[in-house]
Amino acid sequence: MPSGKRGRFAEGTPLLEAARQLGVHVESVCGGRGICGRCQIEVQEGKFAKHGITSSNDHITPFGGNEIRYAEKRDLKPGRRLSCTARVLGDLVIDIPQDTVVNAQVVRKDSDGRVIARNPAIQMCYVEVEEPDMHKPLGDLDRMLIALETDWGIGRPVIDAHILPGIQKVLRQGEWKVTLAIHHDADGERPHLIAVYPGLKNEAYGIACDIGSTTIAMHLSSLLSGRTLASAGTSNPQIRFGEDLMSRVSYVMMNPEGREGMTIAVREAINGLIDKVCAEGGIVRTDILDSVFVGNPIMHHLFLGIDPTELGGAPFALAVSGAVALKSSEIGIHLNTGARTYMLPCIAGHVGADAAAATLTEGPHRQDEMMLLVDVGTNAEIVLGNRTRTVAASSPTGPAFEGAEISCGQRAAPGAIERIRIDPETLEPRYRVIGIEQWSDEPGFEEMAKSVGVTGVCGSGIIEIIAEMYLAGIISEDGVINGALAARSRRVIATGRTWSYLLKDGEPRLTISQTDVRAIQLAKAALYAGIKLLMDKQGIDHVDRIGLAGAFGSFIDPKYALVLGLVPDCDLDKVKAVGNAAGTGARMALLNRDHRREIEDTVTRIEKIETALEPKFQEHFVYAMALPNKVDAFPKLAEVVKLPERSVDTDAADGIDPGAGRRRGGRRRG
Amino acid sequence: MPSGKRGRFAEGTPLLEAARQLGVHVESVCGGRGICGRCQIEVQEGKFAKHGITSSNDHITPFGGNEIRYAEKRDLKPGRRLSCTARVLGDLVIDIPQDTVVNAQVVRKDSDGRVIARNPAIQMCYVEVEEPDMHKPLGDLDRMLIALETDWGIGRPVIDAHILPGIQKVLRQGEWKVTLAIHHDADGERPHLIAVYPGLKNEAYGIACDIGSTTIAMHLSSLLSGRTLASAGTSNPQIRFGEDLMSRVSYVMMNPEGREGMTIAVREAINGLIDKVCAEGGIVRTDILDSVFVGNPIMHHLFLGIDPTELGGAPFALAVSGAVALKSSEIGIHLNTGARTYMLPCIAGHVGADAAAATLTEGPHRQDEMMLLVDVGTNAEIVLGNRTRTVAASSPTGPAFEGAEISCGQRAAPGAIERIRIDPETLEPRYRVIGIEQWSDEPGFEEMAKSVGVTGVCGSGIIEIIAEMYLAGIISEDGVINGALAARSRRVIATGRTWSYLLKDGEPRLTISQTDVRAIQLAKAALYAGIKLLMDKQGIDHVDRIGLAGAFGSFIDPKYALVLGLVPDCDLDKVKAVGNAAGTGARMALLNRDHRREIEDTVTRIEKIETALEPKFQEHFVYAMALPNKVDAFPKLAEVVKLPERSVDTDAADGIDPGAGRRRGGRRRG
Repeated sequence: MPSGKRGRFAEGTPLLEAARQLGVHVESVCGGRGICGRCQIEVQEGKFAKHGITSSNDHITPFGGNEIRYAEKRDLKPGRRLSCTARVLGDLVIDIPQDTVVNAQVVRKDSDGRVIARNPAIQMCYVEVEEPDMHKPLGDLDRMLIALETDWGIGRPVIDAHILPGIQKVLRQGEWKVTLAIHHDADGERPHLIAVYPGLKNEAYGIACDIGSTTIAMHLSSLLSGRTLASAGTSNPQIRFGEDLMSRVSYVMMNPEGREGMTIAVREAINGLIDKVCAEGGIVRTDILDSVFVGNPIMHHLFLGIDPTELGGAPFALAVSGAVALKSSEIGIHLNTGARTYMLPCIAGHVGADAAAATLTEGPHRQDEMMLLVDVGTNAEIVLGNRTRTVAASSPTGPAFEGAEISCGQRAAPGAIERIRIDPETLEPRYRVIGIEQWSDEPGFEEMAKSVGVTGVCGSGIIEIIAEMYLAGIISEDGVINGALAARSRRVIATGRTWSYLLKDGEPRLTISQTDVRAIQLAKAALYAGIKLLMDKQGIDHVDRIGLAGAFGSFIDPKYALVLGLVPDCDLDKVKAVGNAAGTGARMALLNRDHRREIEDTVTRIEKIETALEPKFQEHFVYAMALPNKVDAFPKLAEVVKLPERSVDTDAADGIDPGAGRRRGGRRRG
Repeated sequence: MPSGKRGRFAEGTPLLEAARQLGVHVESVCGGRGICGRCQIEVQEGKFAKHGITSSNDHITPFGGNEIRYAEKRDLKPGRRLSCTARVLGDLVIDIPQDTVVNAQVVRKDSDGRVIARNPAIQMCYVEVEEPDMHKPLGDLDRMLIALETDWGIGRPVIDAHILPGIQKVLRQGEWKVTLAIHHDADGERPHLIAVYPGLKNEAYGIACDIGSTTIAMHLSSLLSGRTLASAGTSNPQIRFGEDLMSRVSYVMMNPEGREGMTIAVREAINGLIDKVCAEGGIVRTDILDSVFVGNPIMHHLFLGIDPTELGGAPFALAVSGAVALKSSEIGIHLNTGARTYMLPCIAGHVGADAAAATLTEGPHRQDEMMLLVDVGTNAEIVLGNRTRTVAASSPTGPAFEGAEISCGQRAAPGAIERIRIDPETLEPRYRVIGIEQWSDEPGFEEMAKSVGVTGVCGSGIIEIIAEMYLAGIISEDGVINGALAARSRRVIATGRTWSYLLKDGEPRLTISQTDVRAIQLAKAALYAGIKLLMDKQGIDHVDRIGLAGAFGSFIDPKYALVLGLVPDCDLDKVKAVGNAAGTGARMALLNRDHRREIEDTVTRIEKIETALEPKFQEHFVYAMALPNKVDAFPKLAEVVKLPERSVDTDAADGIDPGAGRRRGGRRRG
């Protein structure tokens, strides 16, 4: 347990050996010498009807030998056994605890709490090496490799060059007992010896990092226990070269040193984050042996030192789409000298390794249900699929969802309005501000507002206000602000030839103008049209589940996403924010190399749709300008939200140039 | 031809394909497009009785197509065919010329003229890559790899990190036609993509280098034709840290920065040599993709940046004895960014990769005859074996053979006496000097001697003079200078309580003292004793062939080596100088990766004898103090040289401490 695998073993088989025979990963650094304590298991006692056996502590060898010695020196919880020492005597149900903590690690944050089955690319192998002998003049390294093959069955590893100069010193320091760090990722590949430590080295760490265009997030995990020791984030310093991705590509095109500058900037920021997570986790950089990075194609390329110019125009050619594996030192990431870096594959020129990582996390390809996975940025990355077939596309939503191009828009930061409700009778709003606990109509809000300030509306707030305006009848399904309402509310005010909604008076004065509504309509129409193209490819008219990824997806209220028609109709409880799914996917690839193979394989089978080349995009786009949609019904949404009655015969495209969203500023990503 | 392999092929099979099916290496860079011209062959016409066929140009498709196009642009000798284009129509005897020169290379020196069958670790693969397509968003690199797999059957290469940043530019420069440099050494290992060139890159070079403690020698070879383009040598700058190997080890032990200083010095010298061979060969450094280095264990370690201190005392532990493979850039050797370095395995703590390379060259393990291979330095490396069994040892000969510890000794340089004859009647010598064509008794010598000078006696000269003194009866078989001869010759002179032989009067005055004779006796006794131990292990009393390797071996006259008893009795015409056998072995490993496997495998099977641990060493040593030997007869030598009559009952060890040679200065290598 928990894998549920079962088998028959000869009496006397060590449980560690039994686990290996079953293909169940139980960690062991010392190779069964009972000194690392990594291979702990527990016997579940009792009658197990479904297995038809009675499991009992009488069916395992008594606590003794190495276990007693280990328990004397280290902490071994009652009931825990060392599977290298304990042997099978009869029927047993064995539990492999997921919380085995050997060293006194400070576990600060377990990221999303997800337990990831471990099978890391790094293996720590303790060996005892024969001392040199004039009669057998094999080199020290060569004798060490014989011990590795004898004790661990790992033959002929490739030796990292940096190992050679220090090997004799380490062997003598450890008095011929050393721990080898072996990197072995893909099968059919020779393992690599990447580090050697004197004595028993009972720890190894890795980092998983999501390089977003705005934010870089990093987790530090133990490769031996799977625990997350620390997490940290920082803003992407490339922002100084350009706010959105296309402006960064432009910067590279205009400045000969631009690419190098941005590469250096992002690597420096990442090295800074490594310092942070190491300090928080109480470890040193050189204990980090593996690393996984994900990012959108432009972040991916700039991180690797690749000029992203080709991604700035058709045919949007990636330099490399497959997974990338290299030594961290080769790209200026300072970890252990032998540390490795793995980057997940990119799906297409606009659908990056971050989307691949989110796919790995949410696993549409592992499900029977048809799942839609959306990561909204300046360029939305969309994946739609199930076990049978998965398709992907990107859609140029522009920066409206992030608050840009919106008169009162701002980044999600203290002072930004993030939640809004409009009373359909009075049309009066109430809202909640980041950094203030109370709603705006609750006692204490005003006082807090004085110190925090109310400075603008962030992305999720904008979605809510447009949706609420629609639900309150302030805007029509075509997105037109109804000026007639000015007669009964001071909130609807004339702005030249169109109307605005006054969200907040005072300083600053926050209004939603007709132009703001149009900007959101264009953005959401682009997103929805992209999703519809994928649904067309799948031949479906609804999806079973929706995952909203990324920062925007985490804060958006699924209900309002549906009211606005960002995504197709769906059971509300099947629409979920999936958090930093990309970061979680990176962590999965870090802790389990099978997940690397899984996503590499999945990506080759994902069909990519280039929205710009699909004739039906325009039609979908025009229909999607309407709220929630001109032609698609939202019956499931209607069960929980009273939607305004639909008008008939109105042309959603009236007065709207359906190409405007795409032409403005050209192709965008995010 | 010349492999002699034969087979049956379907009519219409391209000859290149037929060669591959036979396992015969025919080069091709363009993959059969008829543009690289590498795959030339010739039809041998006529009746071939032993094959039972008649080979005719009528049995091959007529000259045409790609061949005509190629011949128009490039030089194609009459009779030559492109095997990718020409197809089998009937019985054929096909010759694969070994001199196919495609580019106008200046071939200066073909090192030792040996033709080495090629199967290099580097393969140049021209491919035409599909252009990017929005519908198929595979990366540029990924599409390139598909072309590599389709056209060349090379799947899933590991991509060198430095390839990524430049790949898009190279593909566009070459208009989607590029040549990939693939490094594939050991089977069962994934190939590596190490370089990409725009268009057809029809050349690739490698260097083979022997790092001697005194001299570093390098050859530059074409990996595609096998030709040696240039050779160069330089003195090892480590000499400034210590003349012989042990003094260099001492320097490292005494100076904290000593190891690094010597590593930098040897790498700088090697980089300087690379400049030299590139200039001579008319190529640029970046065209060099592979490199092979050999050296004795201390040179090997210092080159790799490994502290050699452990080699300075028992148990003489090598840091690494197996073959070492790494990127050249990792050890500061500046070639193409992706270039690789291979170092042959070391045999033991005193028997290095140079001895392994010499073994590869001379191939005792490939012969039925029992071959003795000796490389004399301050430490002699000795290999003895045949197809069945090979044994190796080193013996601490000390620096006497190199002219050190000899009163008139000097390095082999202009002014050094290298050949000597002594008239047994008059005891008068005549000699030949490096830099002077005439013998000392020939007209013109005196004049030349005025400008060149006669400054000392080099190693080969010392061997000859001691041997000639023995043959002339000036010294007894026990090495004692016969003072009685002073009565009849002015050449024999008293020096304190012993006697000397006056080789040359004037300035400088050159004499051979009793101490000089003793030094040579000690050195040759150590060498012979080591050889005898190996003969004991093999259970033999004579050897069939002797190869004398290294600079000393090249200049020594085999006859005198036998007279002195450096090596056991043998047919004189079976005793050969084998030149820089180590350098040739390095070149073999450079041009054919099968030779790498061959020597790796051979070294694991070579039995190493530690002379210091063998009780019989002392006994052999004592007997070997005598000239040629106290107990071993030299009947084959006696057939061609009249040896002095052997005395009876004299104790060879009389007055000689058999341990002296070993204790003086401790253990020595070279």
